[in-house]
Amino acid sequence: MSRKLRMGMVGGGYDAFIGEVHRIAARMDGEVDLVSGVFGRDAAKSAQFAEGLHLAPGRGYADYKDMIQKELALPEDERIDFVTICTPNFCHYEIAKAFLEAGFHVVCEKPLAMNSAEALALEALVKQTGRMFCLFHNYTGYPMVRQARQLVASGALGKIRKVNVEYSLGWLAAPNAGKQAAWRVDPKQAGISGCMADIGTHAQNIIEFITGMPILEVSADLATFVPGRRLDDDGSVMLRFADGVRGLIFASEVATGEEDNFIVKIYGDKAALEWRQMEPENLILRSNDAPVQIIHRGWPGTGDEAMRFSRLPAGHPEGFIEAFANLYRMFVEAVRTGVPGDYPSVSDGVAEMRFLEAIVANSGGAEKWTKIPR
Amino acid sequence: MSRKLRMGMVGGGYDAFIGEVHRIAARMDGEVDLVSGVFGRDAAKSAQFAEGLHLAPGRGYADYKDMIQKELALPEDERIDFVTICTPNFCHYEIAKAFLEAGFHVVCEKPLAMNSAEALALEALVKQTGRMFCLFHNYTGYPMVRQARQLVASGALGKIRKVNVEYSLGWLAAPNAGKQAAWRVDPKQAGISGCMADIGTHAQNIIEFITGMPILEVSADLATFVPGRRLDDDGSVMLRFADGVRGLIFASEVATGEEDNFIVKIYGDKAALEWRQMEPENLILRSNDAPVQIIHRGWPGTGDEAMRFSRLPAGHPEGFIEAFANLYRMFVEAVRTGVPGDYPSVSDGVAEMRFLEAIVANSGGAEKWTKIPR
Amino acid sequence: MSRKLRMGMVGGGYDAFIGEVHRIAARMDGEVDLVSGVFGRDAAKSAQFAEGLHLAPGRGYADYKDMIQKELALPEDERIDFVTICTPNFCHYEIAKAFLEAGFHVVCEKPLAMNSAEALALEALVKQTGRMFCLFHNYTGYPMVRQARQLVASGALGKIRKVNVEYSLGWLAAPNAGKQAAWRVDPKQAGISGCMADIGTHAQNIIEFITGMPILEVSADLATFVPGRRLDDDGSVMLRFADGVRGLIFASEVATGEEDNFIVKIYGDKAALEWRQMEPENLILRSNDAPVQIIHRGWPGTGDEAMRFSRLPAGHPEGFIEAFANLYRMFVEAVRTGVPGDYPSVSDGVAEMRFLEAIVANSGGAEKWTKIPR
Amino acid sequence: MSRKLRMGMVGGGYDAFIGEVHRIAARMDGEVDLVSGVFGRDAAKSAQFAEGLHLAPGRGYADYKDMIQKELALPEDERIDFVTICTPNFCHYEIAKAFLEAGFHVVCEKPLAMNSAEALALEALVKQTGRMFCLFHNYTGYPMVRQARQLVASGALGKIRKVNVEYSLGWLAAPNAGKQAAWRVDPKQAGISGCMADIGTHAQNIIEFITGMPILEVSADLATFVPGRRLDDDGSVMLRFADGVRGLIFASEVATGEEDNFIVKIYGDKAALEWRQMEPENLILRSNDAPVQIIHRGWPGTGDEAMRFSRLPAGHPEGFIEAFANLYRMFVEAVRTGVPGDYPSVSDGVAEMRFLEAIVANSGGAEKWTKIPR
Repeated sequence: MSRKLRMGMVGGGYDAFIGEVHRIAARMDGEVDLVSGVFGRDAAKSAQFAEGLHLAPGRGYADYKDMIQKELALPEDERIDFVTICTPNFCHYEIAKAFLEAGFHVVCEKPLAMNSAEALALEALVKQTGRMFCLFHNYTGYPMVRQARQLVASGALGKIRKVNVEYSLGWLAAPNAGKQAAWRVDPKQAGISGCMADIGTHAQNIIEFITGMPILEVSADLATFVPGRRLDDDGSVMLRFADGVRGLIFASEVATGEEDNFIVKIYGDKAALEWRQMEPENLILRSNDAPVQIIHRGWPGTGDEAMRFSRLPAGHPEGFIEAFANLYRMFVEAVRTGVPGDYPSVSDGVAEMRFLEAIVANSGGAEKWTKIPR
Repeated sequence: MSRKLRMGMVGGGYDAFIGEVHRIAARMDGEVDLVSGVFGRDAAKSAQFAEGLHLAPGRGYADYKDMIQKELALPEDERIDFVTICTPNFCHYEIAKAFLEAGFHVVCEKPLAMNSAEALALEALVKQTGRMFCLFHNYTGYPMVRQARQLVASGALGKIRKVNVEYSLGWLAAPNAGKQAAWRVDPKQAGISGCMADIGTHAQNIIEFITGMPILEVSADLATFVPGRRLDDDGSVMLRFADGVRGLIFASEVATGEEDNFIVKIYGDKAALEWRQMEPENLILRSNDAPVQIIHRGWPGTGDEAMRFSRLPAGHPEGFIEAFANLYRMFVEAVRTGVPGDYPSVSDGVAEMRFLEAIVANSGGAEKWTKIPR
Repeated sequence: MSRKLRMGMVGGGYDAFIGEVHRIAARMDGEVDLVSGVFGRDAAKSAQFAEGLHLAPGRGYADYKDMIQKELALPEDERIDFVTICTPNFCHYEIAKAFLEAGFHVVCEKPLAMNSAEALALEALVKQTGRMFCLFHNYTGYPMVRQARQLVASGALGKIRKVNVEYSLGWLAAPNAGKQAAWRVDPKQAGISGCMADIGTHAQNIIEFITGMPILEVSADLATFVPGRRLDDDGSVMLRFADGVRGLIFASEVATGEEDNFIVKIYGDKAALEWRQMEPENLILRSNDAPVQIIHRGWPGTGDEAMRFSRLPAGHPEGFIEAFANLYRMFVEAVRTGVPGDYPSVSDGVAEMRFLEAIVANSGGAEKWTKIPR
Repeated sequence: MSRKLRMGMVGGGYDAFIGEVHRIAARMDGEVDLVSGVFGRDAAKSAQFAEGLHLAPGRGYADYKDMIQKELALPEDERIDFVTICTPNFCHYEIAKAFLEAGFHVVCEKPLAMNSAEALALEALVKQTGRMFCLFHNYTGYPMVRQARQLVASGALGKIRKVNVEYSLGWLAAPNAGKQAAWRVDPKQAGISGCMADIGTHAQNIIEFITGMPILEVSADLATFVPGRRLDDDGSVMLRFADGVRGLIFASEVATGEEDNFIVKIYGDKAALEWRQMEPENLILRSNDAPVQIIHRGWPGTGDEAMRFSRLPAGHPEGFIEAFANLYRMFVEAVRTGVPGDYPSVSDGVAEMRFLEAIVANSGGAEKWTKIPR
């Protein structure tokens, strides 16, 4: 009998919805026990939060250094196997670095780091330590996103021509949108970009995940609509890939009234697909020769990749949390086998950082197209 | 610190998707640990299944009697707090009875029993033992179903006039639809009805849950479309409530191509609502005076009842599993406090059985309307 | 060169939206000129209305008798070829009778008459005179309704099992809904039924049109929700066809907030189809073996029947008016060739009246099922 | 009594679906009679086509010069009042010029001309002759597009921030897409652009129509995906308006599987709207403070502007043809009163040409942003 894995967390305490999502997702399949973590910037609050989670006394730590030191002091069969980092962007690098160096596997929220230098350093460290590392681009965990990738790879769409991605939210439309919003547009905590770092990277990541094609050149127009805000809260980016393929990203966090409107459209010369995060169970397939098909997760037409990541029969809606759990399922398998799974890697984090740096430079500059180093 | 509850299961082993759903849902909020169960009709297989679930050795039992005996022999702080029964209908009664009598709280799949006599006996036993009892009508756990109920109660729809519910599935359209399908149309295992017991009861339950109005009279036409099948696989029922209110149920398991197409429409003299299980986050509100409103879970317009049962922000799709987990969340609270929660009760199981008996009698008889005893 | 046909109208003057719809639809294809009519109950108003329509002086008549007399007095190349009757139900019979006897072809709004005796008399008269007669069940003119019929006939759905039709409107939810509403619930003008005569007949007609199966038995529950109203404003009907096929009609004019929510679902043992009047360009096709297909008018997958009744390419929405015009297109062809077209006939009007009489009798009586004479 | 107007056509003969659309739309309201036209490039075919339309003998002309000459020779009460030009782009200028100079009013298909010089010349000529001139951007005729404009003007969206328009079609995805497709990518007939001239101009026009804000700067990436094609069949354009407003156009005619997928989204700081051409009766309204509203044409919530352009009650779908007819209705009124109506003007044609010239220049050049002269 393989045992459950022991999980630790840094971040995801009070007010951070994403922390609870990580906890639910990690425990979903009964293969992970959360055993410890840093759940706040204050030792007492962290301990109290840990108690609320029914963790053993002493396993809610003051900070990540304290956590590493004390976990290492525990017997091996109590010590965490991996840590999930879900702090604001600016501490990803130092925390991930410390846990990797201490020998732990790491799950890290996106975007990976503050810049490509940090990302490259982490990439080297992962290689050197041999630890498993999952960059948590949760949307890649949706079954129908997996099927989208499989369809592209199978040639079902023919030669890809154009990619059109929209990711629009309304939550930053007003100046004050709460604590979770505030750090995302604070350069010290978020880095060189606000909206594009937060959701533009999801768009870039899912495009490269589904199509397998790296974005080579960008032409961008980032905007800050709310007066006084110091980072972009909106952006448009035109994309160029190899072989004449083109693309477009519309990302906005001031798109009043939008909830989490993430739409991916891929057009090939034979067929096209559309996936919408808010109706994630559908993959819409179009061609010039046949009626529109709506492939519904679990129903005939669902491919083996998508079935592998399904828990419920068709018609019993799965959602955000299951997609999250799918990344954990793969990560657990990776930790057990020592073979990295089919989830976004630290190298995808490097690509993400370079994409961000390129669009920020391009938007502020005079050149029409900016190349992304590869 | 309140501790986690210890859960046992009877049923839900190999091939039974609903068992895994119960396990995921029960552990979702980190308040329940599954510790034991009967996971098959053979002792060895049950033990093996339990091992796959990382249960402690010896906690996968041969049968429910074995389970009760051995659980009672355990120290109180290892013994289960409650059991979840997810076997075919025909054993609900005897298993629930045994666990109640042994002092355990019970979660029981629907329909409650094989007939109203069994249901009444369980109702009496629950009263007598004071144990918590949840009849698992999972659809009542959806946040927007809760909001539907709240809207009706608030008078937002005005005086209710008509209720129209459709529950259509295609899974029994062909003669052989697998093991899970087979027992549902076997009178020995399912009882006096097939389709109506399986999904017609969901329709009856959700109508009474949302409106608070008991169905008083029915006129039904049950059908068996697949030759050789011994129970109904389809049915239409006209409904009458007090005060002139009317209703209609269309239920079918031979509705080719339908997945889990459960639609509830409630018409009042001021406004109307529509909820569709396959897009469960939306509550559609219509009136003669204003544009259609789509209330999306988590977004402004969501009521406090629905918010209380939400885990994710708007736009991050929740689904079937969260609705399940909401019943567990209430049940955990009930067990902790000793106060029954706002989930379907054993008395709702009595109503369910009487509804079934009435429509089966009516459909086979000559009278136009059959009264349901109350 | 075949000439344009000359059309007359009785009814459809001030306040009657359906009259203008007939005029637009009739002229849509450039094959019909409206030349005369009775457009009100007062000679002066009728003449004035005719002038607003740019008709020749003297062609707006006082009443239908005046119209027949004066049209017959005109030279043959000025006289109308056919008349469209769009008055309230109670005068259909006498007007249609008079025009048929005078030798004119007739387009008549539904329901055909006040009872089956009138309907049978008209059926005999049509046979005797050899005139063309179109009972204007406009929804049969939608291209995708035509395709639905073709799919059923082709066996694409397999053996039909169940039919489920909803037709819900909110316009009579309040007591006073205007002049157009008032006559529909006045027994003198509407006949033995309100809601069922107005829209229940659409449901019955489209079911028989698409499936080709006559309804043999009904069990109905008609209701009058608005106090003081003298005819039904709502109804549920269970249907039985030959060979074990079942069906259900939910019709309501007090379905608050519904606009013209006419939905047809046909389930066969191989596949099922769904058509929704408010998105009339789609035909949804479901099976247990393949993804949902949405056949969009004009796009590949559209059958030849639907293409024959299309004017615009796919993606350029057609609607209500084109469906109307399709009946006129067929009627024009019928008048030119002397061969009745593929539109609802006077005999369909007989079936409609018998259906109405059966459900009214059944709803008020004690027997469970009432046979419809054939 | 005001008489019907007499209409002539140039173009719109065999194979040209848009010609028939103009004819149906023009006659829809019973205020226009088509009396003559040039319906092909060959005198005999034009005459034969005219005969099929039931036109008087001699009113199907050989070419537009012949038409002008012979129409001018007719008595005033037989002569056309206006001409509709629906030829390929390259002849719009010379034909419009000739009819204006001959004193006729003109309806002209878009895009107005081959370049801004021609457009400016026509603008001057319209001013000089005082004739009515309608640039036929048909999508501005949709009631809910009118309401969108009204909502923006009323301030209901607050300050506009971002505009996102998609117009995607699949019809040019393959090299050979028929005669109607061929001329659109032939520089001699279409001009400097293919896709952007054909549908990008619809996007530009509807943005400026709804928001009232001229596009000031563009950054574009036009592409030609089908080998051998000589004009763009796809394009992305980033837009800048005054006062920091941004926008984005995604236009493609190689978007495999798309029919006429024209979507307009306007985001303000208070609310946002979405309109989709393929479900044209809905206007979707979103804000951060309230549930999504779907304003359905004709239902409460529909504004007076939209009501003014409605013919049918809510729930009775209107579509493409009615939008077309709405421009004709306004044009008829303009001709009768001598006051230009609220339809796109020759000056909008100038803006359209300048937009096209700017994006073509920008896409081929090195500068990031290109200003559009005003």
